[in-house]
Amino acid sequence: MTRLGRKRGTQPKVVALGGGMGLSASLAALRRITGAGDLTAVVTVADDGGSSGRLRDELGVLPPGDLRKALAALCGDDEWGQTWARVIQHRFQSRGDLHEHAVGNLLIVALWEQLGDHVQALDLVGRLLGAQGRVLPMSAVPLELQALVKGHDPGRPNDVETVRGQATVALTPGEVQSVHVVPHDPPAVPEAVAAVLDADWVVLGPGSWFSSVIPHLLVPDLLDALTETKARKVLSLNLAPQPGETDGFSPQRHLEVLARHAPKLALDVVLADEAAVPDRESLTDAAKRLGATVELAPVARPDGTPRHDPELLAAAYDRIFRMHGRIGPWR
Amino acid sequence: MTRLGRKRGTQPKVVALGGGMGLSASLAALRRITGAGDLTAVVTVADDGGSSGRLRDELGVLPPGDLRKALAALCGDDEWGQTWARVIQHRFQSRGDLHEHAVGNLLIVALWEQLGDHVQALDLVGRLLGAQGRVLPMSAVPLELQALVKGHDPGRPNDVETVRGQATVALTPGEVQSVHVVPHDPPAVPEAVAAVLDADWVVLGPGSWFSSVIPHLLVPDLLDALTETKARKVLSLNLAPQPGETDGFSPQRHLEVLARHAPKLALDVVLADEAAVPDRESLTDAAKRLGATVELAPVARPDGTPRHDPELLAAAYDRIFRMHGRIGPWR
Repeated sequence: MTRLGRKRGTQPKVVALGGGMGLSASLAALRRITGAGDLTAVVTVADDGGSSGRLRDELGVLPPGDLRKALAALCGDDEWGQTWARVIQHRFQSRGDLHEHAVGNLLIVALWEQLGDHVQALDLVGRLLGAQGRVLPMSAVPLELQALVKGHDPGRPNDVETVRGQATVALTPGEVQSVHVVPHDPPAVPEAVAAVLDADWVVLGPGSWFSSVIPHLLVPDLLDALTETKARKVLSLNLAPQPGETDGFSPQRHLEVLARHAPKLALDVVLADEAAVPDRESLTDAAKRLGATVELAPVARPDGTPRHDPELLAAAYDRIFRMHGRIGPWR
Repeated sequence: MTRLGRKRGTQPKVVALGGGMGLSASLAALRRITGAGDLTAVVTVADDGGSSGRLRDELGVLPPGDLRKALAALCGDDEWGQTWARVIQHRFQSRGDLHEHAVGNLLIVALWEQLGDHVQALDLVGRLLGAQGRVLPMSAVPLELQALVKGHDPGRPNDVETVRGQATVALTPGEVQSVHVVPHDPPAVPEAVAAVLDADWVVLGPGSWFSSVIPHLLVPDLLDALTETKARKVLSLNLAPQPGETDGFSPQRHLEVLARHAPKLALDVVLADEAAVPDRESLTDAAKRLGATVELAPVARPDGTPRHDPELLAAAYDRIFRMHGRIGPWR
């Protein structure tokens, strides 16, 4: 695998915000750039489905699933890293109680219960895995995602109603108009705030827009840090609209929705795959309203699926960090 | 903690056979002697109770609990070792599906499912923990322990009947007369056989006599190896009879019962705590019939509970290995 060349001491400090597969794609790319340097993932804690949802219900803990996926994405390419990545992602298959529980979730929760400290426990799992970066929850309290959805009930297509729970929001047949979290002003994890303030680059997205990307902007301390930090900010757009959450959304609409949830947040760069941008001018205009320029680069996998290729995404981030960053040989 | 002095290259190769708390006591002592040297635990796989029993039933795997306990006992005294020992021993407490499941059990099973190889998976957990020795199952197939018990039903005190399952045998109010395993001729794990044949010392016990110590003698390949090996053999007696399994058993009766299950097996040393030997002469006679001499040493914890003290047990093993062994400065 490539580790893109960058002189020692010039690796940028990068914070990636998100959740799920989108964040994993970003992290798999970013660890190729930052190497043993400074990479921090700040992860949503609003999941209420699957193994995470059951653990929340049964044990009253943070949903660990998105944290686990981020840790797996930070595993190295050596045998140790890849073996443990597979193990923590392993899900039991049975007709019994353990069905679909991911082992990494159980391990993370056990460490939380043993150590009584979210951050210390995740750091320890990171050490076990040899993870090439740090994984933090955005908040130390489990959140409920709620959405205002038009037409959630297909029988009443014009009604706007509140839909509760990330798993339900993600699958709504209606049109998501906005999201909020309960509690409304969750405390941010201090280490996450500090990482954002200290970063050279902050990366938002790609990912499920309403359930993985926007929730970070709903944590007041984290939004303040994102607004105040001197870090440059790049928003990485999705390769396709997501059925349910962002059905039929254009790239520019993704930006508009984000801006509605955080009107004061300025961005520096919007990264998109040219093949996923039908109307380049509208996207450029929408980006400009956020203070950002658009960078187009081929970042999709060659197999045609709407998933990011880690090598290509790494090359795109590296180019952006060099061209738009405050550090680099050209300054 | 003490590491008893022994010159590099003169550490004995030791194999300890057993299960449960008794084996853990032996391993915690032996790792103080062998250090980073050669220590192998060969562990029963007949447990059908608790977390292990549920995993057996739900996923059709070997019961991992005794293996997990052995791994925890081999963890080092540094922070990493002690933290992971606590984590793998951690049990969830809830009103739901995970209640009482031990995290280490889930981790071991996940590795078995991922790697498809019992030994490789346990070695990998050992590497994670920094375990000071190797842990092997005695057989790669889960076993059912069955016992002939007199008076299992208190209403019929003279009836002898077959009682099935280790958890049930361990708690019988009757008198266990003999045990066997189903299947009757389980295959031994080859690495366990090789370790016994290659050892300088084999340690049996302490532990639940019928469910942790004797089962190894019921695996034909393992019994053959124990009979053929040039290793010296020490049997470590319990500090007290165990309610249920060995209620009212004298030390010598423990030896007689063992001999009945493996008439050809000779021993070299029987280790007992003097305070637990009411009739020294009878024990000496019983040991002699097995080819063994008796070594008495204070090995119980000073707190008066019938549990072994790891430091005292280490000192006793070390003395025995030096006095009765084939390696040492006195040769």
